[in-house]
Amino acid sequence: MIIIGELINGMYKDVGRAIANREIDVIQHLAQDQVKAGASILDVSVGPYSRNHKDDIKWLVESIQKVVDIPLAIDSTMADVIEEALKVVKGRAVINSTSADEDKMASMFSLAKKYNARIIGLAMDKTGIPNSKDKRLELAAKIAAKAVEYGIAAGDLYLDPIAMPVNVAQAQAPEVLESIREFRIICTPPANTIIGLSNVSQGTKACRGLINRTFLAMALASGLTSAILDPLDRDLMDSMITAELLMNKQIYCDSFLEAYRKR
Amino acid sequence: MIIIGELINGMYKDVGRAIANREIDVIQHLAQDQVKAGASILDVSVGPYSRNHKDDIKWLVESIQKVVDIPLAIDSTMADVIEEALKVVKGRAVINSTSADEDKMASMFSLAKKYNARIIGLAMDKTGIPNSKDKRLELAAKIAAKAVEYGIAAGDLYLDPIAMPVNVAQAQAPEVLESIREFRIICTPPANTIIGLSNVSQGTKACRGLINRTFLAMALASGLTSAILDPLDRDLMDSMITAELLMNKQIYCDSFLEAYRKR
Repeated sequence: MIIIGELINGMYKDVGRAIANREIDVIQHLAQDQVKAGASILDVSVGPYSRNHKDDIKWLVESIQKVVDIPLAIDSTMADVIEEALKVVKGRAVINSTSADEDKMASMFSLAKKYNARIIGLAMDKTGIPNSKDKRLELAAKIAAKAVEYGIAAGDLYLDPIAMPVNVAQAQAPEVLESIREFRIICTPPANTIIGLSNVSQGTKACRGLINRTFLAMALASGLTSAILDPLDRDLMDSMITAELLMNKQIYCDSFLEAYRKR
Repeated sequence: MIIIGELINGMYKDVGRAIANREIDVIQHLAQDQVKAGASILDVSVGPYSRNHKDDIKWLVESIQKVVDIPLAIDSTMADVIEEALKVVKGRAVINSTSADEDKMASMFSLAKKYNARIIGLAMDKTGIPNSKDKRLELAAKIAAKAVEYGIAAGDLYLDPIAMPVNVAQAQAPEVLESIREFRIICTPPANTIIGLSNVSQGTKACRGLINRTFLAMALASGLTSAILDPLDRDLMDSMITAELLMNKQIYCDSFLEAYRKR
């Protein structure tokens, strides 16, 4: 699966401080550590406390690109902030994200086309996050249709059913799993599916790791192709590798965990 | 989910010895420990080294029933051995198992009807274990049709797609997961689905626990309703409880693992 490292996000206190104080080492270590642990894309977000989103995202992208050479997912609700990053990003970025709202899709898909970027589409709109898999499917299909209009290939589209915290929206967890399965039939070839994994355990008091890695295995069984997650969580990565093995996507050998990590 | 404890099986060296020497304490402790850990049914097998299957199964059933009061799954390939157990078993037993072969189904379903027992149906026949989910579905449907003939309710039927060791039959793992999903649509209301979980990691050199608990979470995401497993594997039970939580089948609370175990 495609692993998008989640750790460079200003909402985390130490990262927020590193951005504010331009502590480049903190950011670069986080980038290198995540790549070493198996991330093939890094999510980059200035977080909610940034005083200047454009300056901050540009500094983050440039700082990261000095030490690692993998694609970045530019994570912002604001199109102009995303564009600021796309101007300096090397290789093919991922726009994180568009919703199914017409105005949002217009601005984000325009950017995707202009900068040849991939894009994450959240199955939600101005009315909120759906309660049912059927509504999720409807919104994801709307996004996929818009992608066709803009000439974005299905392989460059990441459809996100939006995992919800199990402590407040428990009934949504099986809906999200079923959505992952259903999203695969929207396009041919299928679009990627993606979840922000840590959301599922957000606010739970104990067992966050256990909840995350169990849900990831379940999502992989449902056909998930990518996730935004913490690649430094070794137990989580072990579960992911094992689930891929059991989906017949990694070749079995007695030391399959080590073999995966040596790739 | 329905947990069938797997540990009272003569193929395990200490159990085989306990059966041969009539060490009742060993068997009774295994029964009590498994029930305490969450098993709601106990599998009982004399194993391959028994010198007198009928005497041994009868002794096992009677020994276990002196200390625990839950249903037993009588595990043998021989109908007369199963019947010997059914004569002394209290409550509703589970016959483990029939294949899709006509002669086997005739003898095992007759027993199920005569003794009002539930029954496990393996999706295999004399030609072997299928390589594909389609063939598994065909055989499972055959067993389900035969159950109808004998007046066995769908809820008393446990369809088993047969999990295979990932080290020798890796491609079968996703087929088994898909089969679990497909077996649900054979009957209305759906029959139970079941796997012999430990099979999936049989013969692997490392990470047996990790493979088992990851596959169980994936199987639960596919709709599995029961499994034969080792309930004394605490990490496995934690994964099972968490997967049930994420399927919205256990109510979330901050101490959901403890809450489940206190039920």
